[in-house]
Amino acid sequence: ADTARLIVSGIDRPRIVSNITGCLSQFGANIIESQQFSTEAHGGLFFLRIEFHVSCLRMILPELELALTYHANAYGLSWRLVPVADVKRMAIMVSREEHALNELLMRWRSGDFLADISMVISNHPHHGKAVESLGIPYHYIPVTPDTKSAAEDKQLELLSGNVDFVVLARYMQILSPRFVERFPYRIINIHHGLLPAFAGANPYRAAKERGVKLIGATAHYVTSELDAGPIIEQDVTRVDHRHGVAELRRRGSHLERSVLATAVSWHVQDRVIVHGNSTITFTN
Amino acid sequence: ADTARLIVSGIDRPRIVSNITGCLSQFGANIIESQQFSTEAHGGLFFLRIEFHVSCLRMILPELELALTYHANAYGLSWRLVPVADVKRMAIMVSREEHALNELLMRWRSGDFLADISMVISNHPHHGKAVESLGIPYHYIPVTPDTKSAAEDKQLELLSGNVDFVVLARYMQILSPRFVERFPYRIINIHHGLLPAFAGANPYRAAKERGVKLIGATAHYVTSELDAGPIIEQDVTRVDHRHGVAELRRRGSHLERSVLATAVSWHVQDRVIVHGNSTITFTN
Amino acid sequence: ADTARLIVSGIDRPRIVSNITGCLSQFGANIIESQQFSTEAHGGLFFLRIEFHVSCLRMILPELELALTYHANAYGLSWRLVPVADVKRMAIMVSREEHALNELLMRWRSGDFLADISMVISNHPHHGKAVESLGIPYHYIPVTPDTKSAAEDKQLELLSGNVDFVVLARYMQILSPRFVERFPYRIINIHHGLLPAFAGANPYRAAKERGVKLIGATAHYVTSELDAGPIIEQDVTRVDHRHGVAELRRRGSHLERSVLATAVSWHVQDRVIVHGNSTITFTN
Amino acid sequence: ADTARLIVSGIDRPRIVSNITGCLSQFGANIIESQQFSTEAHGGLFFLRIEFHVSCLRMILPELELALTYHANAYGLSWRLVPVADVKRMAIMVSREEHALNELLMRWRSGDFLADISMVISNHPHHGKAVESLGIPYHYIPVTPDTKSAAEDKQLELLSGNVDFVVLARYMQILSPRFVERFPYRIINIHHGLLPAFAGANPYRAAKERGVKLIGATAHYVTSELDAGPIIEQDVTRVDHRHGVAELRRRGSHLERSVLATAVSWHVQDRVIVHGNSTITFTN
Repeated sequence: ADTARLIVSGIDRPRIVSNITGCLSQFGANIIESQQFSTEAHGGLFFLRIEFHVSCLRMILPELELALTYHANAYGLSWRLVPVADVKRMAIMVSREEHALNELLMRWRSGDFLADISMVISNHPHHGKAVESLGIPYHYIPVTPDTKSAAEDKQLELLSGNVDFVVLARYMQILSPRFVERFPYRIINIHHGLLPAFAGANPYRAAKERGVKLIGATAHYVTSELDAGPIIEQDVTRVDHRHGVAELRRRGSHLERSVLATAVSWHVQDRVIVHGNSTITFTN
Repeated sequence: ADTARLIVSGIDRPRIVSNITGCLSQFGANIIESQQFSTEAHGGLFFLRIEFHVSCLRMILPELELALTYHANAYGLSWRLVPVADVKRMAIMVSREEHALNELLMRWRSGDFLADISMVISNHPHHGKAVESLGIPYHYIPVTPDTKSAAEDKQLELLSGNVDFVVLARYMQILSPRFVERFPYRIINIHHGLLPAFAGANPYRAAKERGVKLIGATAHYVTSELDAGPIIEQDVTRVDHRHGVAELRRRGSHLERSVLATAVSWHVQDRVIVHGNSTITFTN
Repeated sequence: ADTARLIVSGIDRPRIVSNITGCLSQFGANIIESQQFSTEAHGGLFFLRIEFHVSCLRMILPELELALTYHANAYGLSWRLVPVADVKRMAIMVSREEHALNELLMRWRSGDFLADISMVISNHPHHGKAVESLGIPYHYIPVTPDTKSAAEDKQLELLSGNVDFVVLARYMQILSPRFVERFPYRIINIHHGLLPAFAGANPYRAAKERGVKLIGATAHYVTSELDAGPIIEQDVTRVDHRHGVAELRRRGSHLERSVLATAVSWHVQDRVIVHGNSTITFTN
Repeated sequence: ADTARLIVSGIDRPRIVSNITGCLSQFGANIIESQQFSTEAHGGLFFLRIEFHVSCLRMILPELELALTYHANAYGLSWRLVPVADVKRMAIMVSREEHALNELLMRWRSGDFLADISMVISNHPHHGKAVESLGIPYHYIPVTPDTKSAAEDKQLELLSGNVDFVVLARYMQILSPRFVERFPYRIINIHHGLLPAFAGANPYRAAKERGVKLIGATAHYVTSELDAGPIIEQDVTRVDHRHGVAELRRRGSHLERSVLATAVSWHVQDRVIVHGNSTITFTN
């Protein structure tokens, strides 16, 4: 209960680390895990993630935040402090295929994600029973070309203020820029191709046609440009001439499951920092 | 000495396998390894690779070829019979970077490739000493935009009739269609990106800019379209935000070495069959 | 519906393959997939798996079996013919941890396994609701040191004649030789260590103590000797000094899931042949 | 030239990190890379590796060391400061097989290791020419059961004071405890098995007999107990029933090459810290 994560970024200057760790020390904090990254040896950008334990976190929080504000202002840093007990709320959006949804539910039930699943939204009705049996609200919102805008209104109404991030677990509708802007770098999509190869529709078919020997999956943050947002995690599996498109899809589905679950788990633990169109991933 | 490989392809029909294996049996052949692939359950294309042992191979070869011709004609099949003792002759072409060349030389010395290295051709002089110390002829042929056509003339003169296939071990000059046509599906290139992503120049820089989490290497047959020929083998290695372009290049170089060596080894053993713009790889 | 698998093994002699494929040809069969393996170039053991399509399989089956018997007798071969429509019936046995069970159920629902799950047997009651909601009978049979023998009686009564093979999906009770003998090479266990390392109890703890950099999981057939049966499939994942035993267990659980699912899928498709204490795996 | 690494370990207490980074700051150091690890949330052991840049490193070194001594004494810490310009000197010991030696030489020539190769010692004469052509002294010291002790005397005489660490690149003689003690945690061996499985002689044969589906290689520090020292790095490659012992050896040799090279590279960069019989590997 007394654990928190501190994420800091800014222009790299001497003494940043010693000042911040010194500040934490003054509150009696013990650093459990610390990772930092500088884009250059001198004067580049600086990124820091510290996970620490401190007694009576809630009580000292206002004072600690004041002290961090002081240091951050002195060095022009951005920062956020996240008590681990402030569990993130996620929404899952899903279309017909259930494998990614099921993986997330399975890991959530086993305690792998320290996060709440606030709701599942789908343009298909048939996952409702399984989702609701876990006590998670399921919202069936059909989407057609004509109703897409109205459907997004409904989705946003459900999401606004109720979730911290959104996971597209094989949600096959393209979100409008208006939707995406409401959750900057807080929508995680799983693409069933090894981006930047095979962006867009039918990546397995395209992979088969090109005759690749590895197929991949990519978890990334959604931006207004399709399949072009910052990549969080990728992985591949070996295929060969014997495997048709259906078999690529089957093999790929297991890859999609694990890559998406890993990306969600890193996001939940504040291990992913967006930098330009890339991510810094302080993995564990 | 009495081992051979039989590669067969054509339109799939019943009884092909039994006729061919029956034919081999009549000569007392023992099948060591056999792989086949059909593109469809019925009436697609059929590919077969059989490695067999037979006593007095050289003596019975003419008769065996006659018998195979008979069956092939009956079914409209293409085939080739390769005595394992007929060692393939390869040329290596290389530019400045030596890692891929060195890997091939190292594996060749350890007996991994059952092939001869007939020559090394380079547009740089500095690998000459190492290559010649192994008893392999080294031809330094400088290439400039003005001399490129004349250089290719020289290269082709050296290669013609003297080699069975060509390996581009990080040879950074684009070969003209005229050159490529002389060795159809017998030029193997190693591309330092996971095709179809990052085709063309500077793949590591492009990979860094896109923020990928895996970098790859691709061995493929060279066709007239740059980096678009049939893929033989690919592999990836994990990278992250800490790795700059130079570090990607360093890590990628080890990948290039192993992917190229694997592709060459399969080609040498007649394990790669081109089908459309893909390959069937009967791997071991 | 008209597809079948033929598995053949015996002492290697010339003409076996041509005779068997010729026999299939006479029935108009078309070979979809064929794999063979000989332990020696001459006179070793011979293993063959052919998947073929033939019109009116059920009708010609008796005649085909007669013909195969004839050839098998002539060469002293063992063989079995498995119509793909003869779906195997599996039982799953599981203790407290649910991840392996859930993976099997998830893949079964998505049609990955062409098999029936006839029942789930557990020494814990708490998976019952989830299993029964899928229409699968769940048998809760508590096991204590005193009741173990009686519990096995009950288990065997349920299984006998009702299942073709048994999957131990993290079933933490050691089966008696009497039980094992009833299902020779038809009980698949997932061991949470990379055998032969870390056999027995607490493999993750032992792995941590030895300071390994990779942890693994092993699917194997159960024999009377603990964790010593023929290995079907193995895989590893990378760990480091930061990961405690609980984290190894968490990471390993995902490995166990995929390794077990792969092994079950190969077994269901008759791709695994036991040879001595090893397996020949004609993978796809 | 002005870069150094600071390695610190001891009992974990609050303020260690802030004091040490504060101390570095006072000298105007800029932290390039920093990794830390604590075995427990409170009061366990603490390990820190910082790579930093500072102007005029050589000039300020005595003062910096004084300051670090002060802090280390206050907290009871062990530490060492390694200027990157102080290039480590390695000896390579090798027997008949050359693949691991060649890999190290190839990487050294390409600048992968920031280290000197002071000498190669072998109980076989035949690598001499290749090694000496690179300007590296080659010492052929035959070893027989009778001469082993005298041979070690010669080896130690050559090594003493002349090298910082020793790499056993498939050196097949077991070193005596007397030898090992002279280089505590400074002898790196490559074992051709995935320890703790297949320790001792003939690991590939043992792997074949057990029917494993993955073979591995392990780089570890040599201690007086055979193949039982702290593991630095491991990796695996997939094998199957078709691969005999010779093929396992061939495939394994490539694994040995890369695993050993990685371990040497981490050791050279002071990324490996021994803790009990495990290693903390602050990898890059």
